[in-house]
Amino acid sequence: MRLYHHTLSAPSRFSRLMLAEYDVAFELVEEQTWRKNPDFIAINPANSVPVLIAEAGVPIVGAIPIAEYIDETRGPMMHSKRLMPDYPLERAEVRRIIDWFTGRLDADVCRGLIRERVIKLEQAAEGGSGSPDSAVIRAAKANAKQHLTYLNWLAGTRNWLAGNSISAADLSAAASISVLDYMGEIVWQDLPAAREWYARVKSRPSFRALLSDRVRGLMPVSHYVDLDF
Amino acid sequence: MRLYHHTLSAPSRFSRLMLAEYDVAFELVEEQTWRKNPDFIAINPANSVPVLIAEAGVPIVGAIPIAEYIDETRGPMMHSKRLMPDYPLERAEVRRIIDWFTGRLDADVCRGLIRERVIKLEQAAEGGSGSPDSAVIRAAKANAKQHLTYLNWLAGTRNWLAGNSISAADLSAAASISVLDYMGEIVWQDLPAAREWYARVKSRPSFRALLSDRVRGLMPVSHYVDLDF
Repeated sequence: MRLYHHTLSAPSRFSRLMLAEYDVAFELVEEQTWRKNPDFIAINPANSVPVLIAEAGVPIVGAIPIAEYIDETRGPMMHSKRLMPDYPLERAEVRRIIDWFTGRLDADVCRGLIRERVIKLEQAAEGGSGSPDSAVIRAAKANAKQHLTYLNWLAGTRNWLAGNSISAADLSAAASISVLDYMGEIVWQDLPAAREWYARVKSRPSFRALLSDRVRGLMPVSHYVDLDF
Repeated sequence: MRLYHHTLSAPSRFSRLMLAEYDVAFELVEEQTWRKNPDFIAINPANSVPVLIAEAGVPIVGAIPIAEYIDETRGPMMHSKRLMPDYPLERAEVRRIIDWFTGRLDADVCRGLIRERVIKLEQAAEGGSGSPDSAVIRAAKANAKQHLTYLNWLAGTRNWLAGNSISAADLSAAASISVLDYMGEIVWQDLPAAREWYARVKSRPSFRALLSDRVRGLMPVSHYVDLDF
């Protein structure tokens, strides 16, 4: 399988974690969607990542369809390591949390920060113009506070985010959190329960590849790779 | 079951169509999320609609988790009328289209128009301030064009949006389209394939309740309820 992704795209990271946890071999292809590559748009007219090229060469578009596909096709062989619960009401709670972190948190916070701090740098290096818009960055930081407070509350009231067992919800949230942490947007001492939860997810083998990834022009904060931060 | 919704919320309409097509009895409760009702926020901290109160009083938050829940719990009894296909790759295509219309089209177009044209009127009637922001309306209209062109292309190349049979993807798209059509945002003569497709979805019994709904201060365009428009 092949996954079109971008290094700091939170939904792409969620797909990478799902594939790794379900032991699916895949190759990664970096897609810089702001270049509007016609070959990629032919695969996905929405010009968004992630896209998984699955069995038979069929593209699966979007982190949520990819997660459901991986679980539907590989889940039955995972036994107790399956990351979607058996019962519909519990599955609904996992999906609610995935929608929160892969949908809202990404739209309200991550995408704006990445556009202003990473994509504009890439474009400038190629002779493009446009400097970071500080109003966008301020708005994203203000939104981040609410999301992190909610994450800390969830992590403090449950063993894992959607209940007693680790689930796809934890991977979804940790994918988004890893992007914010890379950019130094998280003050961990204010978020003790979230910190303890994130340390557990971050120490999983599926997380290693994410922690070694770098984007051009923006190094991660110093504690980004530490498992004890 | 009880569904918290808003009359012109596209994701809420998608949930109403799913419940009706799967023959689930439910009561509707209008939730005006801009009032920030603490009782509702206790049910759904994201303060978003739709929310379905399911068996055992457990809230299911968001149109996509609701659609999956209805299909998982009722689908096996639906036989050939089931609105999710059997095969994982086909399910992925249904989910891609749902994400397009219930996710992107709603975020890029519907929500901005409703805030400026409907919610601000409601707030003004209660002594609030704020007049419609014409820049937001212009941006939403420009985005709408691309989405409608894509819908017309999809409808022209397939029998139903995700393939040969009607699926949840058609309900998702029709829910969003019905909101834009209510507000007079669709020039149907430019979209012959989309029009033929929408006429088929609109004539389904599940659609009737949507067509009779009205919001305060904004009447639908004259062809909104016509099955032959």
